[in-house]
Amino acid sequence: MTLSILFSQDKIAVSVTKEGLMKTTLYQGNHTFTVENKEKLPPKSDEVRIKVAYCGVCGTDVHIYHGVMDKRVNIPLTIGHEMSGIVDAIGAQVSHIHVGDKVVVRPLDSRGEKPSDKGFSHICEDLKFIGIDSPGAMQQYWNVPAFTIHKLPEETDLRLAALVEPLAVACHDVRLSRLKKSEMAVVLGGGPIGMLVAMVARTTGASVIISEVNQTRIKLARELGFTVVDPGVENLIDFVRSQTDGHLADVVFEVAGVQSTVDIMVDIAGIRGRIVMVAIHGQPKSVDLFKFFWKELQLIGVRVYEKEDYETAIQLITENRLPFDKMITAVKPLDHVQQVFENIDKHPDGMKILLDCQV
Amino acid sequence: MTLSILFSQDKIAVSVTKEGLMKTTLYQGNHTFTVENKEKLPPKSDEVRIKVAYCGVCGTDVHIYHGVMDKRVNIPLTIGHEMSGIVDAIGAQVSHIHVGDKVVVRPLDSRGEKPSDKGFSHICEDLKFIGIDSPGAMQQYWNVPAFTIHKLPEETDLRLAALVEPLAVACHDVRLSRLKKSEMAVVLGGGPIGMLVAMVARTTGASVIISEVNQTRIKLARELGFTVVDPGVENLIDFVRSQTDGHLADVVFEVAGVQSTVDIMVDIAGIRGRIVMVAIHGQPKSVDLFKFFWKELQLIGVRVYEKEDYETAIQLITENRLPFDKMITAVKPLDHVQQVFENIDKHPDGMKILLDCQV
Repeated sequence: MTLSILFSQDKIAVSVTKEGLMKTTLYQGNHTFTVENKEKLPPKSDEVRIKVAYCGVCGTDVHIYHGVMDKRVNIPLTIGHEMSGIVDAIGAQVSHIHVGDKVVVRPLDSRGEKPSDKGFSHICEDLKFIGIDSPGAMQQYWNVPAFTIHKLPEETDLRLAALVEPLAVACHDVRLSRLKKSEMAVVLGGGPIGMLVAMVARTTGASVIISEVNQTRIKLARELGFTVVDPGVENLIDFVRSQTDGHLADVVFEVAGVQSTVDIMVDIAGIRGRIVMVAIHGQPKSVDLFKFFWKELQLIGVRVYEKEDYETAIQLITENRLPFDKMITAVKPLDHVQQVFENIDKHPDGMKILLDCQV
Repeated sequence: MTLSILFSQDKIAVSVTKEGLMKTTLYQGNHTFTVENKEKLPPKSDEVRIKVAYCGVCGTDVHIYHGVMDKRVNIPLTIGHEMSGIVDAIGAQVSHIHVGDKVVVRPLDSRGEKPSDKGFSHICEDLKFIGIDSPGAMQQYWNVPAFTIHKLPEETDLRLAALVEPLAVACHDVRLSRLKKSEMAVVLGGGPIGMLVAMVARTTGASVIISEVNQTRIKLARELGFTVVDPGVENLIDFVRSQTDGHLADVVFEVAGVQSTVDIMVDIAGIRGRIVMVAIHGQPKSVDLFKFFWKELQLIGVRVYEKEDYETAIQLITENRLPFDKMITAVKPLDHVQQVFENIDKHPDGMKILLDCQV
C-alpha cells in the first residue's frame, strides 16, 4: 500500500514536470494578494482540469480580502468561484466531459451530505464551498471534481458565462419566490445580485420595482429599463401602493441586508405576500412579526442554487437576450488582482469585475 | 325615504314587544361585566337569530376584559365568538338555514372586501370581527348575518361545538404548515391554541412534541399523550435532535409569543423547515435572519381561518375521536361572567372555560 502510494506520487511528480507552469493568485491575508508561477497539476482520476477564461469577483471574495473570513479560509489560498473556462484535461474515471468543452463550475462540494440534510444537498450541513473552503478559480488552470461541471453550449460567450454563478443565485431566488406573470415584485437593493434578481424576475412576466439609494446604481437600473425608487427621496410604501391599486407587492426580495429594508419589507408586501430573504444578515434584526400574522406573510430563506438553477442561468446567458453586458463593469488581467480588489473598495457601487485569466 | 325608515323602525318596535326578554352580558370597561335583561330582537332580513348554547372565553376576550382593546371595542359591548347554538328565527331572505338547525358562527364580517385583498376575504384589510367590532355571543340570543353560519350535523355535541372556532384556528395553522405524515412538528407553547394545534398536527400522522414551561399544562399535555419538553429543565434543541436522528423539526408552530421562543424556533427547525407564526407579537422581536438564509427556512404567517378550516373543525368535533373533553376546564352559567373572567386571571393555566347560555 505504502509503496503504491509512493509510486503514485512519483508518477504525479513526473507528470508535474511535464505539465509546465501557470499563473495563480494567492490571498495571503492582510488585504494582500500575490501572483505566483506554479506547476500545473494533472487532474486526479475523478477530476477535470479547466483552463480558466474569466473569473468574476464576488462580494464574498471581497469579504475574504477584508479579512472577515480569515478563520474559515486556509491562507494562503487561491479564491474565486464565478468562472468560465475550457476543459484542458480529464481524470481517468471521467466520462461525458471532454477536452475542449466549454464549462462552468457549480462550486458546491456536497460529498459530506447526510440523511438529516433531507436531500437538500446544496445547503447540506457539511457543505464545502469550492473557492472558499478549497482552492478557487483566480488562476490559469483549475482542478475540480467532475461532478461540479456544467457544460456550456458551443456558442456561449465565455465572458458572459462568468456571470452564470451569480445569475444562478438569482434564478434560485426567483424560482423559490413562486413569482408569476401578473404579479408585482419589489427588489430591495440594486447591487449585482439585486440587479440579476430583478432581471430574472422580469422574465416571469411580472412587473418589477427596484429600491436603491446609490445614484450610480439607480442610473444603471434605469438604463436596464427598471422602475427605480430612491427611498431616501420618495415614500416607497406610497409608491408601491400607487403602482398596484393598493394591492402592494406580491413578492419582496430583501437583498440589502440592513435594518431599514427589514423594516420596510413587511410594509410593502401585500396580503399573503412572499418575502424572499436573499441578504446575509450577520446580526439578528428587529422584525415586526405582527405583520406576518396580520397579512399572512411568508418569509422564504434562500441560499446558493440547485442544479436546475444553473441550467436556467446557462440558458439565459447563452440566449443573451437580457442586458448582461451592462452587468460587467470591467475586465482586468489576472495579475492585476491586487489592484482590482483595491479599486472595488474605492468604487463599491460597480457591478461585476472580471479577471481575464487567459492573459 | 324618511317615512319608510320610521315605518320600518315602528315595525321592529312592535316585534320587540312580542319577542320577550333575554339575558345578555355587557363588557363595561374597567374589568367589569354586567348581566342585563334585554328585549330579544327579530333577525333582519339577511340575519339569523341563534339561541346560544355555549360560549367559550377566548384569549382575546380576556385581553378585552383587561382593557387592552378599549380603543377598538365600542363599550358597552356584548363580546364572545367561540359559540354553538340552535337557530331560533330567520330573516325573510334567508334560505338553506332553518329554525332548529344546530349551528356555529364563523365570526368574520368580510363585507368590506376589496380587489386589493386578492381574494383572501378572511384577512381582508377592512375585516370586522364579530364579537369584537360588533356584538358577540355571550348572551342568550344572538343575531348574526346568515353568511357567517356553518351548520352542524344533528349528532354534534353542542358543548364540544363551542370549541369549533379555536379548533378551526388550529386546522388553518396545520393546513398552511403543509405538515405531513413522517414529518416531525414542535409546538412552542401549550396553551389552548397550542394544544389544539398539537392535536390537529397529530391527525396528519406526523409526530408532535410540545414545549411548555407551565407544570399544569405539561401535565395535561402528557395526559393527552404528547411528548412534552420543559425547556427550563431540558435542552430543547438537543432533545429534538435526538428524536429525529439529527433532522431537527420539519415544522415549528410558534404559539408562545415571547423572545425566547422566537430565538429557539430557528434552532430547532431543520433544513427547509417551516416555522408557523401563530402567536400575536405586539412588539417587534429580534430574529436571527441568518438562519433563514443558511437553512432555507420559511416563516408562514397565519391568522384566523377560512371556510374549509371550519368544515374540518366541525368534522373533527362531530367525530369526537380527539380528547376534546379534556380541553374544557369548566362550564359556568352565563350570569357568572364576571367571576369567570376574575378566575381566569387567578388561574391563567386552564384551558377552555365555557359559559352555558341556556341557564
